[in-house]
Amino acid sequence: MIPDILAERYASKALKDIWSAEGKILLERDLWIAVMKAQKDLGLDIPSEAIASYEKVKKTVRLDKITEREKITRHDVKARIEEFCELAGYEHIHKGMTSRDLTECVEQLQIYKSLKVMKMKAAAALYALSKLARKHKSTIVAARTHNVIAQLTTFGKRLAEFGEDMLRAVENVDFLIDTYPVRGLKGAVGTQLDQLTLFGGDASKAEALDEKIREHLGIKRHIAATGQVYPRTFDYECVSRLYQLGAGASSFAKTLRIMAGAELAGEGFAKGQTGSSAMPHKMNSRSCERINGFHVILRGFLEMAASLAGDQWNEGDVSCSVVRRVVLPGSFFATDGLLDTFITVLGQMTVNTSVMEAECRKYMPFLLTTTIMMNAVKKGAGREEAHEIIKEHAVATASDMRSGKISENDLLKRLAIDPRLPLDAGELSEIEKRGSSETGMAERQTEDFCDRADKLADGCPEAKSYVPAPIL
Amino acid sequence: MIPDILAERYASKALKDIWSAEGKILLERDLWIAVMKAQKDLGLDIPSEAIASYEKVKKTVRLDKITEREKITRHDVKARIEEFCELAGYEHIHKGMTSRDLTECVEQLQIYKSLKVMKMKAAAALYALSKLARKHKSTIVAARTHNVIAQLTTFGKRLAEFGEDMLRAVENVDFLIDTYPVRGLKGAVGTQLDQLTLFGGDASKAEALDEKIREHLGIKRHIAATGQVYPRTFDYECVSRLYQLGAGASSFAKTLRIMAGAELAGEGFAKGQTGSSAMPHKMNSRSCERINGFHVILRGFLEMAASLAGDQWNEGDVSCSVVRRVVLPGSFFATDGLLDTFITVLGQMTVNTSVMEAECRKYMPFLLTTTIMMNAVKKGAGREEAHEIIKEHAVATASDMRSGKISENDLLKRLAIDPRLPLDAGELSEIEKRGSSETGMAERQTEDFCDRADKLADGCPEAKSYVPAPIL
Amino acid sequence: MIPDILAERYASKALKDIWSAEGKILLERDLWIAVMKAQKDLGLDIPSEAIASYEKVKKTVRLDKITEREKITRHDVKARIEEFCELAGYEHIHKGMTSRDLTECVEQLQIYKSLKVMKMKAAAALYALSKLARKHKSTIVAARTHNVIAQLTTFGKRLAEFGEDMLRAVENVDFLIDTYPVRGLKGAVGTQLDQLTLFGGDASKAEALDEKIREHLGIKRHIAATGQVYPRTFDYECVSRLYQLGAGASSFAKTLRIMAGAELAGEGFAKGQTGSSAMPHKMNSRSCERINGFHVILRGFLEMAASLAGDQWNEGDVSCSVVRRVVLPGSFFATDGLLDTFITVLGQMTVNTSVMEAECRKYMPFLLTTTIMMNAVKKGAGREEAHEIIKEHAVATASDMRSGKISENDLLKRLAIDPRLPLDAGELSEIEKRGSSETGMAERQTEDFCDRADKLADGCPEAKSYVPAPIL
Amino acid sequence: MIPDILAERYASKALKDIWSAEGKILLERDLWIAVMKAQKDLGLDIPSEAIASYEKVKKTVRLDKITEREKITRHDVKARIEEFCELAGYEHIHKGMTSRDLTECVEQLQIYKSLKVMKMKAAAALYALSKLARKHKSTIVAARTHNVIAQLTTFGKRLAEFGEDMLRAVENVDFLIDTYPVRGLKGAVGTQLDQLTLFGGDASKAEALDEKIREHLGIKRHIAATGQVYPRTFDYECVSRLYQLGAGASSFAKTLRIMAGAELAGEGFAKGQTGSSAMPHKMNSRSCERINGFHVILRGFLEMAASLAGDQWNEGDVSCSVVRRVVLPGSFFATDGLLDTFITVLGQMTVNTSVMEAECRKYMPFLLTTTIMMNAVKKGAGREEAHEIIKEHAVATASDMRSGKISENDLLKRLAIDPRLPLDAGELSEIEKRGSSETGMAERQTEDFCDRADKLADGCPEAKSYVPAPIL
Repeated sequence: MIPDILAERYASKALKDIWSAEGKILLERDLWIAVMKAQKDLGLDIPSEAIASYEKVKKTVRLDKITEREKITRHDVKARIEEFCELAGYEHIHKGMTSRDLTECVEQLQIYKSLKVMKMKAAAALYALSKLARKHKSTIVAARTHNVIAQLTTFGKRLAEFGEDMLRAVENVDFLIDTYPVRGLKGAVGTQLDQLTLFGGDASKAEALDEKIREHLGIKRHIAATGQVYPRTFDYECVSRLYQLGAGASSFAKTLRIMAGAELAGEGFAKGQTGSSAMPHKMNSRSCERINGFHVILRGFLEMAASLAGDQWNEGDVSCSVVRRVVLPGSFFATDGLLDTFITVLGQMTVNTSVMEAECRKYMPFLLTTTIMMNAVKKGAGREEAHEIIKEHAVATASDMRSGKISENDLLKRLAIDPRLPLDAGELSEIEKRGSSETGMAERQTEDFCDRADKLADGCPEAKSYVPAPIL
Repeated sequence: MIPDILAERYASKALKDIWSAEGKILLERDLWIAVMKAQKDLGLDIPSEAIASYEKVKKTVRLDKITEREKITRHDVKARIEEFCELAGYEHIHKGMTSRDLTECVEQLQIYKSLKVMKMKAAAALYALSKLARKHKSTIVAARTHNVIAQLTTFGKRLAEFGEDMLRAVENVDFLIDTYPVRGLKGAVGTQLDQLTLFGGDASKAEALDEKIREHLGIKRHIAATGQVYPRTFDYECVSRLYQLGAGASSFAKTLRIMAGAELAGEGFAKGQTGSSAMPHKMNSRSCERINGFHVILRGFLEMAASLAGDQWNEGDVSCSVVRRVVLPGSFFATDGLLDTFITVLGQMTVNTSVMEAECRKYMPFLLTTTIMMNAVKKGAGREEAHEIIKEHAVATASDMRSGKISENDLLKRLAIDPRLPLDAGELSEIEKRGSSETGMAERQTEDFCDRADKLADGCPEAKSYVPAPIL
Repeated sequence: MIPDILAERYASKALKDIWSAEGKILLERDLWIAVMKAQKDLGLDIPSEAIASYEKVKKTVRLDKITEREKITRHDVKARIEEFCELAGYEHIHKGMTSRDLTECVEQLQIYKSLKVMKMKAAAALYALSKLARKHKSTIVAARTHNVIAQLTTFGKRLAEFGEDMLRAVENVDFLIDTYPVRGLKGAVGTQLDQLTLFGGDASKAEALDEKIREHLGIKRHIAATGQVYPRTFDYECVSRLYQLGAGASSFAKTLRIMAGAELAGEGFAKGQTGSSAMPHKMNSRSCERINGFHVILRGFLEMAASLAGDQWNEGDVSCSVVRRVVLPGSFFATDGLLDTFITVLGQMTVNTSVMEAECRKYMPFLLTTTIMMNAVKKGAGREEAHEIIKEHAVATASDMRSGKISENDLLKRLAIDPRLPLDAGELSEIEKRGSSETGMAERQTEDFCDRADKLADGCPEAKSYVPAPIL
Repeated sequence: MIPDILAERYASKALKDIWSAEGKILLERDLWIAVMKAQKDLGLDIPSEAIASYEKVKKTVRLDKITEREKITRHDVKARIEEFCELAGYEHIHKGMTSRDLTECVEQLQIYKSLKVMKMKAAAALYALSKLARKHKSTIVAARTHNVIAQLTTFGKRLAEFGEDMLRAVENVDFLIDTYPVRGLKGAVGTQLDQLTLFGGDASKAEALDEKIREHLGIKRHIAATGQVYPRTFDYECVSRLYQLGAGASSFAKTLRIMAGAELAGEGFAKGQTGSSAMPHKMNSRSCERINGFHVILRGFLEMAASLAGDQWNEGDVSCSVVRRVVLPGSFFATDGLLDTFITVLGQMTVNTSVMEAECRKYMPFLLTTTIMMNAVKKGAGREEAHEIIKEHAVATASDMRSGKISENDLLKRLAIDPRLPLDAGELSEIEKRGSSETGMAERQTEDFCDRADKLADGCPEAKSYVPAPIL
């Protein structure tokens, strides 16, 4: 058998339990039994022995038998009905139900449960990120924009930026969990006709049944007007938010890959790990690369899910069926793998502060050009003129360093002797002295993020102690 | 000049005013002036005459001059700074600011304003949909799943299903508007260093400045930890929700195209309109097709926006720049066109109730097979056995009708004489009599949707009177 | 274990054999042995007993052991090297090779073999389509544009259109197979340094080795300048063409779903099949819906593959790794399922010619409006004026039919008495008589397509006798 | 008016001329006149004066009038027919034609012409790349995989890799140009019925007309079996290949952005250019970032085009219309901008060989670990054992360098004294001496690529002298 690669290589047990064939069948059978009980309570004539008999065999899951049946019926739910009925020796389940009454509810439950697991893991990731950001809230590093030296910041602040992205994503996942509605037992075309018929046209009973099932599922809202299927836009919304959940981690991973290239930081390298089978010295950012890979996968799943939204014909069809079989578990497995990998990297990464310091020293005059310009402006220079003068010297300095003509960054000397700029060597030296430890509000901003991340984790105790299983 | 096709053919004036070059420059200049005023208030030495001078020329927008300047600077913001300064005769704007301090804020404001327009139009669409759904809450139509006859429903209920999809999307847009945060004046790498420097290191002043600007923009939240740019995930989130906003309308449009094929309904055909230049009789669902087209466009923009999320290197870069120039206005123009087209169709569509009735008559015995089966079960038949018997006769009946062997649907007769089924001709006739006007809870569900849609519109008065300009 | 849903539910054995873990490991070991032999031939000191020993154990595939090893090495290739070496009791494989020398070649071989299978199945589908199109080359059906009645065509011609789309796709797949290049043993960064070192700097030997391996793989071209990995654009190109391969079938499937809604045709309904567990009469186009679903899945995989193209950093990285694990087998499995389903539908579908005839009768005057207009023009009417007059009457006629005011299409009568149109009742009746069997060049065009499709199948004998396994 | 941002900021005049409203109308009118002439030749009664009159006014393009007309007809082609007829004072164009006969042919011509321009520019880019690669075919640079130091290569070889990607893409574009088929005058539903009617049922005349039009367009093939529209798969195929065309340039751009971060190379910085309005020293890779941005845009357009493939209902509809208005010009504009930017960067970039040398010196022992391992193996060490020993020392050395404990890379010393490794200091020193200028076959591979690139340019003379207009 060819395994689902995302499930088997990357996903956690918690997720696999929800999405396995057995797991799904157990949820289905629980639902069928809940429906029988509710129908009986509401007056349908269903023998207690029948219910008991179904209860007794509900954990007997024979996947091979079901597959055989499906080859005949060419209808997967029918196959599972027949199997369960034969096991129980009764024909009482699925009364007044269409396949979708069953599968929609069960799939929504799988989604709902999975979203909660993702929320917990995201909180765990943010908690780990917060710890690291706090530790490095004052660790000075050269900020880069366009991937070139810009101004100073702190490494903690850099981490906080990616965390800010993820915090927002969690807020959105939370909103989805809080407002997620279930379709319920709305019948073949959404009118609840068949339950109505069973209850002799008593609308209150049909509604009561629907409500009992919503409670059984533990989901807060229901969808009032629906066809055979719930709008696939909800699946899109779900994948869309999972994609967003991976964005901050993905930006982090790309940045760490770039930082590793300059030895500023690394994702860690476990004992016994091999970077390259050919080049023994290699310590690759493989886990970070994998995070980026997961995000690409999620983008493909997003595309599939987006294609299902806005494509409902009449009261619904099943052109979405094969797509959802791939997208729904796949999106959760990929997000699960992404988050576990992210948490793992956060737990083992190395931060090379010496290299960070050396880089800052080398480029310090460049890192301060804004401050120099602003001081010149304060002393009366026109902003645009000062900009031009500093640029001219900075470009020349960089050019000389790159060609090997000079080995030390002497921009300040050049500026000091340029009569157009109203700053002398002493003033420039003073700017450098003050400026080389000046990171603006970076520390304060970092703490602000950390406080919010920790607060999230406080509300989700499982997150604080979560440790992913070792990754491949 | 080649026009933006989405803006010029399909978007409304409200949107075009927000996204035009002039519109953007005006917002920018307002921001620059607001910053100068705030900086002056907080103690910076900016002459009142300078501010007055900028105020005086702020509406003089010379796009050609700006383009010329950009050819030299190869930096668009620099070009606009120089132009504004030359017009005013001062160099006081953009102090302590980087380009992104300007453009991020202005673009976020454009997004924020556009989201509010979209919200209003979605409410208007839902209001129109509600009116139509109420009108047809009891208009019986044959529901279809897999595009084939299933059970009865009402046309109002069908409309409500698409509306349900859209209502959810509006809830999400609302959440985005309520929680949308602005980046503010965080400086070149996000540390607010340059404003700090201007204010002599006084953090409270830098924060006060940032807060004054947020108030100027009228956005409720701010982003604490950011780099040079706000996380592009917010752009993705915005496009993602616009895409969702179009989903219900898109499903509606596909369904109406299918219904038009069977003459059950049509999108309306204005006087003077031409369906086909070759075939004079053609009345095409061109507006519905266009709605579907817009949704495909939005999916492409979603893909672009999704590619920007999770791709931030360090404190940011501008590989997103050209993408956002296309995606941001484009997504709003396409959504705008989609919603205006949708509202237009809702206002002019035709519903052919005679055709709906004829279809129901033709297929009535099929439309009732579930009810028949359930009655058989009540009289003691096994559910799966009854299913098999009815299926056998229904398939034979359909086959005979399709081959022309019979012209009337005689399924009930066939069932009446089958001894395996415990229902006689009288009982079946009774089922048909009752069943042919039985649409379950469709009416009640429709009203439930309409109430919620109307409530939304009540909270958005502009929506109730909104009439789109005539569409091409 | 959670199975790969595409592989287990939909893909054929041929494809699964290529992409299973065992299948891949066997291909790898064959490659390692081929490399050893070639290296020995070219002068390296590799004992014959070592090679023999590897040969002896090469079919011993212990997946569990390999997984265990990978947990330690965190490097999958290293784990497989160690396993094979331990089994053989030697350390002679993988000399001068990097992991990518192995995996790139093996994966390209999997792709190459799979492409050939897809080509064969596409030819089989076209052959089946051709047979059906020939059979119905003169079966008149009302052509629809915008999903409404347009002019007459034949059903064979309609099929030929979808076939034309697919024929083009096969041409592209053929081009890819013919020009597909393999990366070969280019070493850790593409310079072949390590093989060069092994051969004491003898470039001709390194090239000879590379060439021997290309021959072993049976692929015609090689890539001269490559980094650690071959450009991922080739993966994109492959998925891109698979997506194209599914387009014709997908349009066919949507059209058949629409036709089924009007009972013009159906995808067939096997004995024992269940359309709906709730509605016994349902005969759903589930296989056609599935075809459409597969195409959506392919579009998501296309997105993933596209994201890998243009994203190579330096000499390559493995952020693509997890993506390719999903995309490569997934794309082939989905295409495989799509093609097998398509062939199955072609083999069992029903064409309801009576319904087609009835529809044509009902709408005949509309179907002929172009001809009427052109005859009016011939008799001196202005084209645009004639268009307007006919449109006016056609719209009125349609409206009366839809409202139930008339039951027969009386457009010709209306036109006959309109003095503005220079055609009398006799002329119009004559036009109708001739026109109602007039389908232009439809038959000729159908044959043209069929001839080309058959020619393709002639060049691919396996295709002509191919019968897919029964689908679920 | 809001301009098309891609056209106005980034695209070249050649492309804009093809896709402007005026350009399209001129092509349309030429086609209408060609059709009249052909129809007259084949026997239709069309007065010469009428044709002359159309010829006379064909360049009078009044876009505002046409827009006004469309507001009434709600049909864009009808509006353009009426305008042209009113200008000419006749009603003889568009005979036997449907709108699609016109627009399909004209749009295919726009595509065909644009593809040829893209081919030329790609050849120009490859020619420029080849020049640069030849110049640096022996410039040693540290190859990186996973973005960390791997082995030596040459900078010319690195460029050749990206060129290899692009060469393949050109091969595909060529194939598309050579085999691109035109739909021709197939009529309202593809049966050529209306031309047949005009010619009194003479099939040879209808075919002759179609053939004359194909010749007028200058396209080699035609599509035999088509509906109202040509299969949108051809649009997808076109965008798909444009996307591929940008992949090599996109990988180049990302790599140059990374290299610029380490000052190894830069994209050049023109006089007067401003990197950052805040930080005067900034020299950003803005053009490279833009290339990456264009590729993202193309991926979004690819998504739109892909959504049109496989979505044809019956003989066609126009849900694709608004999408194609965006995608077709947009894809060409974006590709045009991408290629012009790429060529510009190739023409102005800087290569800092001193920095490359310094980097190699610093990491030389790491860059040689494979060679060291292979020498150890030659002297009898087990491959996996040697790998482990070298890895252990390399990791320790790297760690000490990163922590600042050592400042020189002393890996060779560590290896020399490790008794487990059969290589002494002399041997290791010898390996270093030889290895530090050893780049395997990089030079030879570079030349191989350059020869093929130059050959392509030789076949496309315009490419060799092509110089893009200055970019913004």
